[in-house]
Amino acid sequence: MAFTFQINNTLKFKHDEKLLAKAEACRPVIHKKEYSPSGIVELCENPALLGGWGVREGEKKIDNISEYGLKRDDRIILDFGDHRVGTFRIHIDQTGSPMDAPLYLRIKFAEMPVELAAQSENYDGWLSRSWIQEEFVHLDELPADLVLPRRYSFRYVELMVVDTSPKWQAVFSNPAVITESSASYEGFTPLKLEDHKLQKIYDVGVKTLADCMQDVFEDGPKRDRRLWLGDLRLQALANYATFDQPDLVKRCLYLFAAMTTEEGKISANIFTKPKVVPDDTFLFEYSLFFISTLYDYHEAHPDLDFVCELFPIAKCQMDITLSMFDGEGRLLVDDDYPVFVDWSNDFNKDTAGQAEVIYVLKQFIALAKAIDVPEEEMAEYGQALERISCYAKERLYDQEKSLFVTSVNEYNIGSQVWMVLAHVMDDEENKKIMQAAVREFFPVKNIATPYMYHHIVQALFEAGLKDEAVQLMKDYWGKMIALGADTYWEAFDPDCPDYSPYGSPIVNSYCHAWSCTPVYLIKKYLT
Amino acid sequence: MAFTFQINNTLKFKHDEKLLAKAEACRPVIHKKEYSPSGIVELCENPALLGGWGVREGEKKIDNISEYGLKRDDRIILDFGDHRVGTFRIHIDQTGSPMDAPLYLRIKFAEMPVELAAQSENYDGWLSRSWIQEEFVHLDELPADLVLPRRYSFRYVELMVVDTSPKWQAVFSNPAVITESSASYEGFTPLKLEDHKLQKIYDVGVKTLADCMQDVFEDGPKRDRRLWLGDLRLQALANYATFDQPDLVKRCLYLFAAMTTEEGKISANIFTKPKVVPDDTFLFEYSLFFISTLYDYHEAHPDLDFVCELFPIAKCQMDITLSMFDGEGRLLVDDDYPVFVDWSNDFNKDTAGQAEVIYVLKQFIALAKAIDVPEEEMAEYGQALERISCYAKERLYDQEKSLFVTSVNEYNIGSQVWMVLAHVMDDEENKKIMQAAVREFFPVKNIATPYMYHHIVQALFEAGLKDEAVQLMKDYWGKMIALGADTYWEAFDPDCPDYSPYGSPIVNSYCHAWSCTPVYLIKKYLT
Repeated sequence: MAFTFQINNTLKFKHDEKLLAKAEACRPVIHKKEYSPSGIVELCENPALLGGWGVREGEKKIDNISEYGLKRDDRIILDFGDHRVGTFRIHIDQTGSPMDAPLYLRIKFAEMPVELAAQSENYDGWLSRSWIQEEFVHLDELPADLVLPRRYSFRYVELMVVDTSPKWQAVFSNPAVITESSASYEGFTPLKLEDHKLQKIYDVGVKTLADCMQDVFEDGPKRDRRLWLGDLRLQALANYATFDQPDLVKRCLYLFAAMTTEEGKISANIFTKPKVVPDDTFLFEYSLFFISTLYDYHEAHPDLDFVCELFPIAKCQMDITLSMFDGEGRLLVDDDYPVFVDWSNDFNKDTAGQAEVIYVLKQFIALAKAIDVPEEEMAEYGQALERISCYAKERLYDQEKSLFVTSVNEYNIGSQVWMVLAHVMDDEENKKIMQAAVREFFPVKNIATPYMYHHIVQALFEAGLKDEAVQLMKDYWGKMIALGADTYWEAFDPDCPDYSPYGSPIVNSYCHAWSCTPVYLIKKYLT
Repeated sequence: MAFTFQINNTLKFKHDEKLLAKAEACRPVIHKKEYSPSGIVELCENPALLGGWGVREGEKKIDNISEYGLKRDDRIILDFGDHRVGTFRIHIDQTGSPMDAPLYLRIKFAEMPVELAAQSENYDGWLSRSWIQEEFVHLDELPADLVLPRRYSFRYVELMVVDTSPKWQAVFSNPAVITESSASYEGFTPLKLEDHKLQKIYDVGVKTLADCMQDVFEDGPKRDRRLWLGDLRLQALANYATFDQPDLVKRCLYLFAAMTTEEGKISANIFTKPKVVPDDTFLFEYSLFFISTLYDYHEAHPDLDFVCELFPIAKCQMDITLSMFDGEGRLLVDDDYPVFVDWSNDFNKDTAGQAEVIYVLKQFIALAKAIDVPEEEMAEYGQALERISCYAKERLYDQEKSLFVTSVNEYNIGSQVWMVLAHVMDDEENKKIMQAAVREFFPVKNIATPYMYHHIVQALFEAGLKDEAVQLMKDYWGKMIALGADTYWEAFDPDCPDYSPYGSPIVNSYCHAWSCTPVYLIKKYLT
């Protein structure tokens, strides 16, 4: 994920070397594999696809690539057949007269054709333009094997000759990507589904997850490339449902646990290269989801020692959270520690935040029980759960409408979804709530993250509205596929497919792990 | 030098391995030396300097460089104090929040401030834009030591942060150039001259030559970077007058000798990296100057074995040249094998070309005599010299005007200069010719190469017009210095200082060896 900028760079963080060493011990093997392009393609307008751009086969053939001499402004687009994360190399020679000037080359990497249509020089968004996957390279001597040192995330590689000289042309051969991922397909049998649409939705989700599984769970391999706690929670769930590599989750939890602030608060995300550094950004429920991720881990791979080890860190998050409630059990939201729920800031998040605390507090109490924390130590948490739930039921629930309301008397989908996921009401009432939500808020408007869509779908499943849940998956993730997705996107608003939170598709992340969750939802609710 | 493009890429060249091995044996040591910048400067308008641009000290100080945090669009210009040829490295770190995006950096290398004022993206010249010394670099992880792999030619380095993120800034420290040159200052004592202007002209010439002395004599270390035969002839003369490293000349002569066309013709220039390759460009007198360069070598460092070894190659050039004369001794110029004389094509070059042949033929006959080529073998060359000289004197010389005329009845400076250098007439007549040339053609118009100015100055000296020769050196090379030159330029028209043969100063070569010859002229004629 990405969000508006917080700057807290005077904060001090702990570095628990023991926990960092355990994180290090869980460092995954990075599997590498070499792929050649499947073809040479041309960019073409296609109104059915994202941004109105697609590719088609052209006159040039990949088998004949070394026969094409490229001069000033000539370009070819290599299609690597599917989404790839890795390094790129190519052999370059020249034809014609001797090379009387350097070769100047622009190499552009694109996950989606729409990125190839965008002009980098026109980019004027608020995110760093350093994320644009475009390199300019001079080669003084040919032949040469150009091996780019950086890792890219792409399906397409556009090679443009900025200049040679009128006397010679550049000739390319043996392009290859060496992909990188810590996901291991060994021992993983993907689900076989009868519904072809769901099968495709599932398969693209698996690929999305795999390409984000690196040294840690990255949010997106193209952009951000870091470990976000809220994203980790969903990636971990998707991981248990597919590759099931628990050590990678363990590694990530150790990293968060090792580097809290001095008061014990967990950062929303961690940078891992060149060394591990917690970001100075904090999101209310991202810190809290440390507990949730630990709970889910223990559900998938029971490990009481691990829970014991991290329980104090989990407790600290809960204590910080509970200190934000008033005596009546009402969450007092703090703008400096914002409730996320979704990127959209067009709806009030107080009630959703309140529900998230109930959701996590239940898991926290369950974890405490599992490791036999004495009841007297846990009494206050039980009381808090009671108080906060009561406040929700009595003060925030509108029985007439079967909908939760926010502190500003607003009814929104976020509140309903999280109250249902938290099981604040009983199953019957939950069903009513989601039915009301479908009536009131469907089709969903102004929500652009698969992260939020995931929670809507899961709430539908939890409320027993299976058909609606499946339909929403098909309408949302299925539409990304129809628009050309090889992997799922960081942001997608079906009403406005071209929307970019950053002002240009070239910095959009078209492979983003928080959107891979259909693999989890399908396995959990449909098999 | 550079010239219009010839394409003859179907030609076959010989590769005489024995001669190539000898060239290899003469490969020079490249001396490396590290320099730090002398300051941080700001670009400023200055009508007195080239293109109206200079630099001045700014608020930022080089000693404090690591205290400046640079964000999007910020830039600093490092001044390395003098012209440098070499590789560049710098340490880069960051300050502020953790690095949440790559650093994207533009690094521009400039020999002259005017290049920093030019916008690369607006370049629309006919020379390859790949010569623009500008790199775009992404760094995913900081701190890092950025070591650029290419060699640059520059005094100024502009570091521009294309982007970081709003949360952090880039910090630079320890910038350095590691210079490269095969010129050895050991054992070389530069001349001490009383005339301060001449001293400065001499000193800048020495620096120009040194920076072009690399693996071979390069024409310019910024652009072209190859071994041109016409340029070599002047570099060799300047070399004997200064560093006096004969092996480098020997190496270059071996290279040309080793790779003639199958008919024996020598290419105008040779590429040396990654392997030696003769260019498919041919210039009439450049091939011929192989003889002249061999002659000058033997004058400076008598070496009969070397002359013997290369004499057959020299003879072949002369034979090709003589086949281009008619029975009366008149050169029939061939557009596919153009007479160069100067870049300008605004004057007729027939008579200058005729004179160049006389100039070289005399040296050729002298070489033959030195190595005792039997007289009968040389008879035809003596006759040719007689015939060609006669044609010049009788058909091309206008006694009334004391000027040579061309085949199209044109009087131009090129004809006079080369006829005087060839000593076609006696000393008295030569003086008259150059006096007439000064009257008719001074101030010199429409000549933009120091190469041609060199020959004008030398002809003045040869004709006994020492004051005029010195004055022209001061007016021409002195003016480059006044405009800010640290080294002499490839092209310079005093009437139009901003002239670029390429449409933009950013591809001009401001350190070009064919303009270093004042070091030779001063030593030969003024000491």
